[in-house]
Amino acid sequence: MTFVFNTFAPMSQYSSATICALATAPGIGAIAIIRLSGEKAIEICNTVFKGKDLAQVDTHTVHFGTIRDGDKIIDEVLVSIFKGKQSFTGENSVEISTHGSPYIQQKVIQLLLKNGAQSAGPGEFTLRAFLNGKLDLSQAEAVADVIAANSETSHELAMSQMRGGFSNEIKKLREQLIHFASLIELELDFGEEDVEFADRDDLKKLVTQLNNALISLIKSFDYGNVIKSGVPVAIIGEPNVGKSTLLNALLNEERAIVSDIAGTTRDVIEDEIIIDGISFRFIDTAGIRETTDTIESLGIEKTFEKLDQASIVLLLVDAAEITRKQLITDVQKIKDRIEGQNKRLIIIANKVDMADSKVAIESKFEDIEHVIYISAKQKDNVVAIEKTLFKFVQSGALNNDVVVTNVRHFEALTKAHEALIKVLEGLDVNITGDFLAMDIRQALHFLGEITGEITTDDLLDNIFSKFCIGK
Amino acid sequence: MTFVFNTFAPMSQYSSATICALATAPGIGAIAIIRLSGEKAIEICNTVFKGKDLAQVDTHTVHFGTIRDGDKIIDEVLVSIFKGKQSFTGENSVEISTHGSPYIQQKVIQLLLKNGAQSAGPGEFTLRAFLNGKLDLSQAEAVADVIAANSETSHELAMSQMRGGFSNEIKKLREQLIHFASLIELELDFGEEDVEFADRDDLKKLVTQLNNALISLIKSFDYGNVIKSGVPVAIIGEPNVGKSTLLNALLNEERAIVSDIAGTTRDVIEDEIIIDGISFRFIDTAGIRETTDTIESLGIEKTFEKLDQASIVLLLVDAAEITRKQLITDVQKIKDRIEGQNKRLIIIANKVDMADSKVAIESKFEDIEHVIYISAKQKDNVVAIEKTLFKFVQSGALNNDVVVTNVRHFEALTKAHEALIKVLEGLDVNITGDFLAMDIRQALHFLGEITGEITTDDLLDNIFSKFCIGK
Repeated sequence: MTFVFNTFAPMSQYSSATICALATAPGIGAIAIIRLSGEKAIEICNTVFKGKDLAQVDTHTVHFGTIRDGDKIIDEVLVSIFKGKQSFTGENSVEISTHGSPYIQQKVIQLLLKNGAQSAGPGEFTLRAFLNGKLDLSQAEAVADVIAANSETSHELAMSQMRGGFSNEIKKLREQLIHFASLIELELDFGEEDVEFADRDDLKKLVTQLNNALISLIKSFDYGNVIKSGVPVAIIGEPNVGKSTLLNALLNEERAIVSDIAGTTRDVIEDEIIIDGISFRFIDTAGIRETTDTIESLGIEKTFEKLDQASIVLLLVDAAEITRKQLITDVQKIKDRIEGQNKRLIIIANKVDMADSKVAIESKFEDIEHVIYISAKQKDNVVAIEKTLFKFVQSGALNNDVVVTNVRHFEALTKAHEALIKVLEGLDVNITGDFLAMDIRQALHFLGEITGEITTDDLLDNIFSKFCIGK
Repeated sequence: MTFVFNTFAPMSQYSSATICALATAPGIGAIAIIRLSGEKAIEICNTVFKGKDLAQVDTHTVHFGTIRDGDKIIDEVLVSIFKGKQSFTGENSVEISTHGSPYIQQKVIQLLLKNGAQSAGPGEFTLRAFLNGKLDLSQAEAVADVIAANSETSHELAMSQMRGGFSNEIKKLREQLIHFASLIELELDFGEEDVEFADRDDLKKLVTQLNNALISLIKSFDYGNVIKSGVPVAIIGEPNVGKSTLLNALLNEERAIVSDIAGTTRDVIEDEIIIDGISFRFIDTAGIRETTDTIESLGIEKTFEKLDQASIVLLLVDAAEITRKQLITDVQKIKDRIEGQNKRLIIIANKVDMADSKVAIESKFEDIEHVIYISAKQKDNVVAIEKTLFKFVQSGALNNDVVVTNVRHFEALTKAHEALIKVLEGLDVNITGDFLAMDIRQALHFLGEITGEITTDDLLDNIFSKFCIGK
């Protein structure tokens, strides 16, 4: 009996046609890139290109010429040639650099289609890179994350994953497990003879160790996920405590920092601030703005829904007006709602400039945790909120270089972990090798799904359909 | 005395720094290109690039590697190297192909700036191509037109100009004139001796010939301008004749034709239709839509203003309701307003399906020119309007391969033409060589401004400031 782990599902549904698509952002620019990949990429480009004979040129060279539809010149272009395994996709590829006019982009693509190319689907270039063994699946997924990353930390995580950091960790775990799996499978081949090639104590030690590594990765997902998507923050409080003033103070500060390089857009999401490379998104700010502090109140269900979506809750109170009794009730109300969830609560004591004395306020807030005293209107101490936001997220970061950011990986890791728990339970009650082998295979299967050693057409469709066209 | 025509104004204000900018459209795409040009382009890129030593590579080659800020990897990139005269700008150039994330674009540009590059101004790459003698001025201007062209005809004109078609025509005319100018200048050197090296009859023949060529080019501007900017069309008519129905019928047909290639946007301007490669823009359609045919009426000044902006006027009438007397009055009113202007009037007889009989209508419209019978509601015969629109523009096209599309060229040609008229007048009254020489020099000056043999910093600033950054 042989045990084949490294099998690809049949890729029958993926065509081997030569594909083409616009690879640069749509719209007008100085330059646009149209990309071709497939066996006939160079041949198809050669039929519409007038300049050097592209069939004769070296890989990784650039050639000036014109793209022509019959006698008609569509554009003067630069054509870059990438051959076979040395290209991103692992197959012949051409990048046509045209003038950045939507009219020309469309004309060139139409011409390529007419000459035998097909429109690329979303992520099809990266899918081919995966199918041709240039990237594993988790690296391919990271390509989309790299493009979408909009803060330093999310960019770093995606870049590390694209460069194989995460895959290497998974592969290392998987190889150790495969070693033991092979020994147990060997036992099964000698089934009648009751031999033990795989030492059960060693196996238990290894599985425990693997399992701890998985748990650490699984735990990193909470952090990884907020880094990737931004940390959801809710600002709540009674009417007229200054919620919209605080929001504006936080956002305006950010706007002033955002550097402005001519010709680039920094896709700043409205109502997002980036603190030391980590993005914080304010939830339902439309609510805060539209109501201008009049409708919303702590008691209503809408506020509770906001709490449910948030990772960090800013409870804003009027430090001058609120009574200690009310304060304790409000804080308790929120604590009850978020109990047992991994959420952080910060109390913002606003309008300290309106209070009679500092002492009066501080005595009111005695024994209450995580209080920040500010005046949103005077923009006083707002920076302390930012520091605290950052600190809370940082403290959630594990001492782990590898962070899981992808929900698919999180699920596969969780399933692998469950299978390993079964292995450990099995070892405790001395179950036979064939049952152990089954659970180990399960764990291997789920780990293999992450890097793509185990895959299906459906899984690939699901992953790559989320990519943009041209990648 | 020597006669120097080919002098550039001093370019002191243009820096020789190495410039960089995003060259692809802003926003998210699969790939973005950041462009560097200048003496130190390769050197600067080399300091942040880890891969092959770029100082050692050949021109027109592509290299895989990483862009790093210290130890931090910003992106995996492809770098294309273009050396000196062989690049677009005529100086060392590098194109860095990054992942198409705005975050990465910004980081890479920041890094290049930190390492000695400067942000490029609008059109600065093309300006350098001009200053380094890679393009003449009219070709450089055409680069922006090529990028902006959004119809087949405007694209063809811009492409022909970028490839030198227009410049060659101007240069040919100018060279012939320079020949005679030199002979006359020579006469001036022998001033006291009353010689005539330049035969006056030959000169008159040549100047007349040149002048005719200029007139033909000047005349082509009307056509060239509508091709470049689109043909402005006004739809006018009394309330409730169906103006907005007609507009929608025309626009909807177009929308259905616009082909849709995934990943590209065809920058369709709202309220524009493209017929056989020529763009027609409907004027003040907001007025038509908002008023839903109730406020606007033929008598008001607003309608007359629309007439003034239009090249083609569609007068829409209710074929069933209108009386012959009213019809004749309306048509006359418009004809009076547009008299002597190069405008076309088409009468659209709408609602023919509501009329009692075909005969009744046709007798009503007897002797009226350019009538098209339609039912906008039934979308009946709307296509006949499109055919007529196209025919009117085509008939304006001269039998001339070279068409002037640029208002700056139009003005320079007109001034050169005026100078030549003076030369002809001078020849008729036998003025002396020094006066002739002055007028010829004027004509040469204005022709030289077109291709950039004569230029000033202000002129260049004015031209290139209209470019996009990165081009």
